[in-house]
Amino acid sequence: MKALETYTVGFAGLGLMGGAIALALRSQGIIREEGRILAYDHYPDTLALALAEGAIDRGFDAPEAMLSQCDLVFLCLNPTTLLRFMENQMASFRRGTLITDIAGIKGSIAAAMERSLRPDLDFIPGHPMAGSELGGFIHARRCSFQGKNYILTPLARNKPENLALLKTLIYRMGFGRITETSPKEHDRKIAFTSQLCHVIAAALIDCEVDPEITRFGGGSFEDLTRIAMINAPMWTELFLENREELLGRIEQFERSLDTLKGYIARDEGCVLQQCLQTVRERRTAMR
Amino acid sequence: MKALETYTVGFAGLGLMGGAIALALRSQGIIREEGRILAYDHYPDTLALALAEGAIDRGFDAPEAMLSQCDLVFLCLNPTTLLRFMENQMASFRRGTLITDIAGIKGSIAAAMERSLRPDLDFIPGHPMAGSELGGFIHARRCSFQGKNYILTPLARNKPENLALLKTLIYRMGFGRITETSPKEHDRKIAFTSQLCHVIAAALIDCEVDPEITRFGGGSFEDLTRIAMINAPMWTELFLENREELLGRIEQFERSLDTLKGYIARDEGCVLQQCLQTVRERRTAMR
Repeated sequence: MKALETYTVGFAGLGLMGGAIALALRSQGIIREEGRILAYDHYPDTLALALAEGAIDRGFDAPEAMLSQCDLVFLCLNPTTLLRFMENQMASFRRGTLITDIAGIKGSIAAAMERSLRPDLDFIPGHPMAGSELGGFIHARRCSFQGKNYILTPLARNKPENLALLKTLIYRMGFGRITETSPKEHDRKIAFTSQLCHVIAAALIDCEVDPEITRFGGGSFEDLTRIAMINAPMWTELFLENREELLGRIEQFERSLDTLKGYIARDEGCVLQQCLQTVRERRTAMR
Repeated sequence: MKALETYTVGFAGLGLMGGAIALALRSQGIIREEGRILAYDHYPDTLALALAEGAIDRGFDAPEAMLSQCDLVFLCLNPTTLLRFMENQMASFRRGTLITDIAGIKGSIAAAMERSLRPDLDFIPGHPMAGSELGGFIHARRCSFQGKNYILTPLARNKPENLALLKTLIYRMGFGRITETSPKEHDRKIAFTSQLCHVIAAALIDCEVDPEITRFGGGSFEDLTRIAMINAPMWTELFLENREELLGRIEQFERSLDTLKGYIARDEGCVLQQCLQTVRERRTAMR
């Protein structure tokens, strides 16, 4: 088996996450010697900047020529763009290529790959939990992987050696914990920890028009709404692609909020305090 | 007028915030020379620790003897305890003492002081926006004031020289911005930036029992729920003391959340994306 450091790694999409992974592969010495980092992106300026910063060895304005050279491809595209890309480019991949992605939903992507992936290709769906409210390659250097979570939702057909290689690469990039789970469980959990949180942050900002409101901030408001500086097209896709799970989580949250509101409205200090104490203990146990 | 650095400053309550202010007065050299820092606290261990760390010069297990010596008193008590303390100790203050507090609600406190404060005393209601999910004097050193907000809701009767002195002291402790406003406006804004955020964090944790949920966290969930590690008795008081404003803010938030839920449920990608874009721009302008 070819050594990881000599792989030719290709990125389809060199935004914040694609860029951050490319930079990590290079700066951690994961890809070196004759190994190469290639990227296809829609924006020539992004490729020029990535070349100038040494994050990639070569940029491509069309995917075919890049894909035919790669041992490993990171698809760093929004979910619907990713699915369209795979449909259009299925024939362009080199025989036996290992493919992975970074999309924040896994069910629809895993299902499409189970259904229509070329038999010789190996696609391991993944989700690095290390985003930021700052988007684009230009902010990729500020994206830290140190100690962060990475979720993999392997397919039954994935080759064990490819899964092992991808996990090695993930840990070497600095991630602290890899969780392997099913696409369905991923989407169920992420609807809560990520999508619901973004919906809440957006709803909070939707409530308030005063641009001077931060005069009254002590950290809570800032922490709860930082993620309202959202990549609107991407999150629209993520919310709608995971609609059922997300709606279930919103409704569950609404019920909990309504319970707390009831305690406050009815001035029920004892039961409110007991509830807050339980919440405190539960959250503390989650650290 | 006596120089600030020679003041005798007393703390009624030496928890996280009282402790952090005492430490700042000392470490920033704000109180020095013949100036002294005194504290009354219910817990002897707290006073012993604060003495050992040099945060205070003397501890008191009853307030009277301390209050009779102070030029400036920080009341660092929960709102209802504070009101009871002022009722019981009104006669114990030295003539002309400047008093301030740190409570997260201001309406009921300002009203009580307008009504019943001894004529020679000067009470300036305040709210340092620099709390933490970690409580108690033991964590006071980890409480940073650097660049934080401090709200003052001065009473009409406050002496200008006392207000100026308190503001000097606040900036010298490291706070970045003082906002003067009415108690009503404070409570209205804080219901949103602080109390609503705490209710949301509590409701989020109320939704989820999996202690391993942080495997699926990428920062958003952690940021939104850190404050769920709440001081349950204090926040119960704050929620209930500001009930009307808080209920209004919860309902406003529920309406915004319901609007977003509707877009998702009806698969309205265009209007959802437009809404998220507006939210992004509004939050970005708040920085």
